[in-house]
Amino acid sequence: MTTHQSISTNLDTIENSNGGGGGRVSASVQDKNVLDKTNGKKKQKVTKLDTNPPKGTRDFYPEDMRLRNWLFDQWRDVAKTYGFSEYDAPVLESEALFTRKAGEEVTQQLYNFVDKGDRNVALRPEMTPSLARMVMAKKGGIPLPLKWFSIPQCWRYERMTRGRRREHYQWNMDIWGVAGEEADAELLSAMVTFFKSVGLTSDDVGIKVNSRLVIGEVLTELGIPEEKFAATCVLVDKLEKVPLDAIQGDLEEIGLDRSVVEKLTKVLTVDSIDGIKDVLGEDSEAVQQISNLMDLCKTYEIEDWIIFDASVVRGLAYYTGVVFEAFDRKGVLRAIAGGGRYDKLLETFGGDPTPAAGFGFGDAVIVELLKDRDLLPSFASTGIDTVVFAQGPDLYNTAISVATKLRQAGQTVELVLEKNKKSKWVFKHADRLGAKYVAIIGSEEFENEQVAIKNLQDGEQSKISMNELSKWVEDSKLVE
Amino acid sequence: MTTHQSISTNLDTIENSNGGGGGRVSASVQDKNVLDKTNGKKKQKVTKLDTNPPKGTRDFYPEDMRLRNWLFDQWRDVAKTYGFSEYDAPVLESEALFTRKAGEEVTQQLYNFVDKGDRNVALRPEMTPSLARMVMAKKGGIPLPLKWFSIPQCWRYERMTRGRRREHYQWNMDIWGVAGEEADAELLSAMVTFFKSVGLTSDDVGIKVNSRLVIGEVLTELGIPEEKFAATCVLVDKLEKVPLDAIQGDLEEIGLDRSVVEKLTKVLTVDSIDGIKDVLGEDSEAVQQISNLMDLCKTYEIEDWIIFDASVVRGLAYYTGVVFEAFDRKGVLRAIAGGGRYDKLLETFGGDPTPAAGFGFGDAVIVELLKDRDLLPSFASTGIDTVVFAQGPDLYNTAISVATKLRQAGQTVELVLEKNKKSKWVFKHADRLGAKYVAIIGSEEFENEQVAIKNLQDGEQSKISMNELSKWVEDSKLVE
Repeated sequence: MTTHQSISTNLDTIENSNGGGGGRVSASVQDKNVLDKTNGKKKQKVTKLDTNPPKGTRDFYPEDMRLRNWLFDQWRDVAKTYGFSEYDAPVLESEALFTRKAGEEVTQQLYNFVDKGDRNVALRPEMTPSLARMVMAKKGGIPLPLKWFSIPQCWRYERMTRGRRREHYQWNMDIWGVAGEEADAELLSAMVTFFKSVGLTSDDVGIKVNSRLVIGEVLTELGIPEEKFAATCVLVDKLEKVPLDAIQGDLEEIGLDRSVVEKLTKVLTVDSIDGIKDVLGEDSEAVQQISNLMDLCKTYEIEDWIIFDASVVRGLAYYTGVVFEAFDRKGVLRAIAGGGRYDKLLETFGGDPTPAAGFGFGDAVIVELLKDRDLLPSFASTGIDTVVFAQGPDLYNTAISVATKLRQAGQTVELVLEKNKKSKWVFKHADRLGAKYVAIIGSEEFENEQVAIKNLQDGEQSKISMNELSKWVEDSKLVE
Repeated sequence: MTTHQSISTNLDTIENSNGGGGGRVSASVQDKNVLDKTNGKKKQKVTKLDTNPPKGTRDFYPEDMRLRNWLFDQWRDVAKTYGFSEYDAPVLESEALFTRKAGEEVTQQLYNFVDKGDRNVALRPEMTPSLARMVMAKKGGIPLPLKWFSIPQCWRYERMTRGRRREHYQWNMDIWGVAGEEADAELLSAMVTFFKSVGLTSDDVGIKVNSRLVIGEVLTELGIPEEKFAATCVLVDKLEKVPLDAIQGDLEEIGLDRSVVEKLTKVLTVDSIDGIKDVLGEDSEAVQQISNLMDLCKTYEIEDWIIFDASVVRGLAYYTGVVFEAFDRKGVLRAIAGGGRYDKLLETFGGDPTPAAGFGFGDAVIVELLKDRDLLPSFASTGIDTVVFAQGPDLYNTAISVATKLRQAGQTVELVLEKNKKSKWVFKHADRLGAKYVAIIGSEEFENEQVAIKNLQDGEQSKISMNELSKWVEDSKLVE
C-alpha cells in the first residue's frame, strides 16, 4: 500500500520549522573550536553546520509533534476499534525486498545505498513488502485471517528535486487470508470511520473504487498475455498524469500496442457499473466483484462516500482486484489514501498463495485537508496543569515537595528549576506554556504550610494546605 | 545522551521472531516468477528472499509491539508528568552532526553512507546533536528553559559482529537553560519515577552519580591543558572495560602520560564524597556540586536510589559536569540508562553558551531487567472485546450492523469476514485472540432481532436485542 503522491505536498504541512518554502534555508553556522585529538591543539576549523534537517525531511518541534501524535492516535483508535493489531519492521530493509520491474515510481525512487558490509539496503518506500517478509518468516505460524496495522515512516529519493518531501508517515491497514470483498469493504469502512472521527463528511471526501479485473478482462479479450498485466496497470496509472505520447517508450518496453492502450483508456472512462456491464457482459467477474463491494458498502452505510470510477488503477504493480483511492471532493489536493487487493504478492516472494488487501494513508495530504476545512484542533498548549514556583532559594525544597505531591496526584507539573526567577517571569512563562495554574510557595504560605494557587483561567487565587493538595487536584478535575 | 551499551544485549529481548540466537537464521525462500519487463517473458530467477530483517535489526510482531507501546507509554507518562514536551527529528541526519574527534564508540560506529546526491549522511547514533541543531535553527526563538523528550530509534554499525543489535529505541529527556544541579536532580527524579511506575525498587536499581569536574580538577592540578579534557574522559570510561595496556595507543594519541592516567584512576576509586573532599579540598567546585545534588535527591526522597561513584564518567565526549548511570543492583546487566550535563555542546556547533543536561534510556536492558524480576505484564491478549460472527451467508449483513453498533459504543470488535466459518473455528479464533465475548447472529436470533452473546470468561450466554447493544456495552464495562 502506498500513497506516495502524498509525500509531495507542501513542505510546511506538518513542519513549520524551515522558514517556509520548499528549498533549504541557508541558516548555516560555524563549527568553531574543534578539538583535534592527534595533537591536542585547538584548530580554528570553519566547518559549516547546517541547522536544517536533511533535504526533504522534517523536524518535529513540540507543536508539530502534538499534531503528529494526535493524528497517529486517531489512526490507532480506529484500527483498534476494528480489531487490528499494530506491528513494525525496520525502516532499513534489504533492497531486494523492493525491487520489482514494473516501472513503478515507488521502486524507481528507492532511497537505497550500499552499507559498510557491502549489503544493498534501502530505507523502506512502503510497508507491504516488510509485512510479507514478516509473515513468511513465521512459516505458517501466524493464524489467518490476519488484521494488522502500522504507522511506518516511508522514504523515497528523487534525483530531480521539486521541493518534494523524501519521507512521510503512512497508516497501513491490511487484512490477509480473506478472499472476498468483505475484507475490502471492512477496510473502506475503517477509512470512513477515521474521516468521520476527524470531522470530515462525504461532502469533503470521496473514495473512488474500481477493480483491476476490468483491465484484466479487456486485456484477455485483446489476447494480451497475463504477464503484462502488472506493468500495464502501472502504465495506465501514469496516463492519469501524462499524455500517451509521453510514455511511448514505456509502452514499447512492455511490448504493448498503442491501440491496446487506446482501447483500455476508452473502457476506463466509462463512469457507471452499468456502462462497464455493457462492455464486459453480465457474467464478468469484474462486474460481480464491484457490484458485491457496492452492496456491502450500503450495509456499512458508507455508500455516500463511495464512487465507482473505472479510471482508478493505482500505481503499484502488485494490485490484483479491487483498488480504491480517497480524494478531496474539491479536487484541489492529491490522493488522500489508496489501497486495494494484492492476492499474488506473497507468491512473488515464494510464499503460499494468500489473499490480501490493504491501504496506505499518508500524513501529509490529510493534514492539508483538515487545515483547509478548519478541522485541525489547536496544538499550542503544552498540556501543563500547574507551574510550581518557590519565591526564594530557601523555599525551593518545598517547591520540590509540592511538585511531587501534585505529580503523584496525576497532574502535569512544570517545576521552575531556577532559584532567581521573579513572579512576573513565572506568570509569563506559565502563560506561554498554556498552563492552567501557578502554585506559589512564598514565605508566608510556607509558615502556614500552605500553597498559593492562582487559576490562570479565571484569575482567582486560593490558599491550599500542603496536606490537601491531592484533594485539590481531584476537585479541580471535577470543575473542568 | 546515549546508552549505547544497551544496544548490545541479547537479540531475543524484545523480539522473539528470529528463532533465537544472535546470528541470522537461514530461512531463505525462492523468488520465483519474476517478471522481466524488457521482453515480457517469465524468467526463472532464483533470487533468494531472506525473510530475516537486516542484520542487527528487529521486527515487531503484534505481541512485541504491545510490549514496545507499553514501555513507550510508561516513558511518555513520566515525561508528561514532569512537564516535558515531545519532539522528533529525522532518523537520517548529516554525518557532520555526529563526527567528533574524541574516540567515542558512538562516533566510531556511525551507520553512515553517501547518498545518491553525494551527501554524507548517517542514521543517528544518538539524539542530542539533532536537538542542538533544532534549537539552533530557531535562532533564539525557543524560550528557555526547555524541557523536551523524545523516543528516537538510534543506530550504529560495527564491522566486527558480536551478535549485537544495530538499532535500539532510546528515551531521551533533556533540560536546557538551567545551570544548577536542580535540573540534574529533576532528571534523576523523573528516572526514578519511571522505575517505580514499572514496579522496580531501589533494591533492584541504583543510580551512580559523579561529576566530571572531579577529573577536570585533577587534570588542572597536574597541569594538563583543558583541551584534553573530553578525550581523557572517554579514555577513562574505556578503562572500566579494558586494562590500561590495551589503550596505550589512545593514550599516546591524546598525548597523555601513563602516570597521569594512573593518578586519575586512583582518584576515581575513592568511594565517598568525604574521600574526594580529602583529595580535592573543601572549596572544590566538584565537591560542592556533588554535595548539592545529593541534598536535592534527599528532598526528592530518592536518596535510596543514588550512590556517589567517582569512577563513573560516561563515554560521551560532551559531558561537562554531573554524570550518572542507572545500573542493575545484581550486577548482571549492562548500564540501564545514562546521562549528565553538557554545558558546552551548543558552543561546539557555533551556538550560544547554553547550560544543558539530559539522559538516554535504551529499550533493551530495561526489558531484560523487568523480565528477570518478573515485572513484565503479559502482552498475549490482542485487547479484542467481541468477535462478531454470522452463522450463515444470508446473515452477514446483520453481522456488519452488529459490529458497527458495538464499535460505535466503544468496543474493539473483530468481525469474522469469511462467510463459511463454523462455530467451532470461531470460538477457537476468539480464544486465540484473547477476546472476551463472541456475538453470534443465528437465524433464530435474526428473526427475533436479537444477538446471542457468549461471555468467554464465565461461559454464560445471553440474548441481547439489537436495539440494546449499546446498553449492553455500557453494562459490560461496569462488570469489569
